[in-house]
Amino acid sequence: MADTQITEERDLREREAEKPHSLVARFAANEPLKLDAGVELAPFQIAYQTYGTLNAARSNAVLVCHALTGDQHVANNHPLTGKPGWWETMVGPGKPIDTERYFVISPNVVGACMGTTGPASLDPKTGQVYGLDFPVITIRDMVRAQAMLLDRLGIETLFSVAGGSMGGMQVLQWAASYPERVFSALPIATAARHSAQNIAFHEVGRQAVMADPEWKGGRYFAAGTRPHRGLAVARMGAHITYLSDAALHRKFGRKFQDRENPTFSFDADFEVESYLRHQGSTFVERFDANSYLYLTRAMDYFDLAADYGGVLANAFRDTPTRFCVVSFTSDWLFPTSESRATVHALNAGGARVSFAEIVTDKGHDAFLLDEPELFAIVRGFLDSAAQARGVARGNARGTARGLDAAAKR
Amino acid sequence: MADTQITEERDLREREAEKPHSLVARFAANEPLKLDAGVELAPFQIAYQTYGTLNAARSNAVLVCHALTGDQHVANNHPLTGKPGWWETMVGPGKPIDTERYFVISPNVVGACMGTTGPASLDPKTGQVYGLDFPVITIRDMVRAQAMLLDRLGIETLFSVAGGSMGGMQVLQWAASYPERVFSALPIATAARHSAQNIAFHEVGRQAVMADPEWKGGRYFAAGTRPHRGLAVARMGAHITYLSDAALHRKFGRKFQDRENPTFSFDADFEVESYLRHQGSTFVERFDANSYLYLTRAMDYFDLAADYGGVLANAFRDTPTRFCVVSFTSDWLFPTSESRATVHALNAGGARVSFAEIVTDKGHDAFLLDEPELFAIVRGFLDSAAQARGVARGNARGTARGLDAAAKR
Repeated sequence: MADTQITEERDLREREAEKPHSLVARFAANEPLKLDAGVELAPFQIAYQTYGTLNAARSNAVLVCHALTGDQHVANNHPLTGKPGWWETMVGPGKPIDTERYFVISPNVVGACMGTTGPASLDPKTGQVYGLDFPVITIRDMVRAQAMLLDRLGIETLFSVAGGSMGGMQVLQWAASYPERVFSALPIATAARHSAQNIAFHEVGRQAVMADPEWKGGRYFAAGTRPHRGLAVARMGAHITYLSDAALHRKFGRKFQDRENPTFSFDADFEVESYLRHQGSTFVERFDANSYLYLTRAMDYFDLAADYGGVLANAFRDTPTRFCVVSFTSDWLFPTSESRATVHALNAGGARVSFAEIVTDKGHDAFLLDEPELFAIVRGFLDSAAQARGVARGNARGTARGLDAAAKR
Repeated sequence: MADTQITEERDLREREAEKPHSLVARFAANEPLKLDAGVELAPFQIAYQTYGTLNAARSNAVLVCHALTGDQHVANNHPLTGKPGWWETMVGPGKPIDTERYFVISPNVVGACMGTTGPASLDPKTGQVYGLDFPVITIRDMVRAQAMLLDRLGIETLFSVAGGSMGGMQVLQWAASYPERVFSALPIATAARHSAQNIAFHEVGRQAVMADPEWKGGRYFAAGTRPHRGLAVARMGAHITYLSDAALHRKFGRKFQDRENPTFSFDADFEVESYLRHQGSTFVERFDANSYLYLTRAMDYFDLAADYGGVLANAFRDTPTRFCVVSFTSDWLFPTSESRATVHALNAGGARVSFAEIVTDKGHDAFLLDEPELFAIVRGFLDSAAQARGVARGNARGTARGLDAAAKR
């Protein structure tokens, strides 16, 4: 029974890693992705979704970048879990990132496990799953791959790049690497470098995965095992950092699970315990353990200033991009001080930047949740940028331009 | 080789659990410890150390309560690690808790593994190590056992009870359970109840231990294994919560380990990673994994108000004890807000209380570190209480009384 489950899950995962339920752009052996590690990844593929329609001027493309355990399924049900897309509150018809106005592209990042090439993909050299033979990748590698995808799609410039957390790191890297291709940028709940504390939390998660004997030195596909327990522990620990103490108290307090008194045992006595166990056990069904190692590593390596002589402002010197930086008061993983450092650097670089710190007790996860102030800020920022860029309301059908003008009168 | 190491370590641990390098008070089968779980622990023993000399009036006894992974070795080298005692900066001749003036008693708590009965001790019923057959214990159980130790030693009242973190929980429990026996109390970096976030962190640590196949359902002594990897992961995660983001940055920043550039691998690239791995690997040599489960559980269950109709002030109603509550600005595990809640309750209960929030970037661990302001506060509070109590400067030899008077002139 357990064996059957593992086989079925491997089948699902391998199908998703190779033949995802989304669009796929394939890059041949002669179109390598040049990695910061000094090696080339080829052939490779990028799985992505799109929402809305590209306009005739190709001026309404918005790239949405996902976070550590996100994927391309921004605004459609997830093919493995059946759950709604991770940013359905933000992206869709009439939503802040309005798919009746913008053409949204959301790629799965390199190193992930939902169809873009990563450690769960097959290594063409061996015909086996890469595992730890996959090269270590960086945020810049992810962005470089996304630029190749846009080239493939014939999109020269992005109207906007938006994302939270690791997605926000990609946004900042996009603006630094390809300033002429980014009209506006929305880095949310993120930082221009990963802090020592965040590296420490990631390292504990990686150690939890690698301590699981079923990890098998990363060769668990071949061994027919899965480091589910280690990955679940990693996820549980990480999940605490996505919330705030206040949010945990509001949700759970010290409430016991289905009872009034303690059991005096090691069962999940408190509601918060069973909640975390649930978070751990559901996560392992949809995520590859090695991908978790690679993507946390990529975040740890992220230090944008280091690529620019240690001066973050140099990453944005004379940038044409307009920025809207957003942080949340109760986010202690990517606290406001990090966003403020980014804003200072943008100002020093001469960028056009607005900054909003949103008051909420929802912690880092606030960027994924129902935060009306966030929606209003994103909508307002994009509206203003769209007017500057001449992106009409309504979509590429062109009828909206008249409506837009009419609305102005 | 590995087998030999495990055998040697088991020998060391079992020796320490049964025949510790410290004083031991043994309680016979007819002197049971009545536990909150509704069962009795008997026979049992308490391992403890003492420093200084009890005066003739028996009025200078200070009980020092240790934190989660501390023990009775407050001010002497640790018998397993050879390292200095965990509070040598605070306790000793001329130190803030001055062993030339006070008689310090530091017991190992029930459930721990340094000689007081706990899951690593032998179950007299079976002759085997208790493991998970050990009953779940609470902070109140620890304090009840300490009261039995004081009875045994013929000490009716404590001049003071002091401790940080889990030690501070014991201090608060002492004041609530035995107000007439506690002249003064020093709860440091602690809380009157464990928060949802702290329960969550503990649960992740427990899951890390229990996910290790070498844990063997808690029967690893019998199996000849040790859940070292799981326990190390638990310790690494917990260790982050003992520090602050600022302290981690000051100590490590994003510095690479012995090199200038990343290795693009999963080695410990950053200094903070190798520091954490070291913390994990040294911890497992001195601590029992099951004890870690039991003591974290005891902290999770701690909710002093719940025992007093949900009103914390009722725990301290008309208390004769004088309190000094101390917190640290960068302690996010037991933040100042928790101490403030305790102070409010003490005020509402009519207690005599002073409160100090010490500005430091050292996080929760500040109570164990070189914090001159903490030392000054503890010294001042105890001096003042000693004058009120008539505890002479110098020790029980009585010669210091003259000196004291001379100094006043």
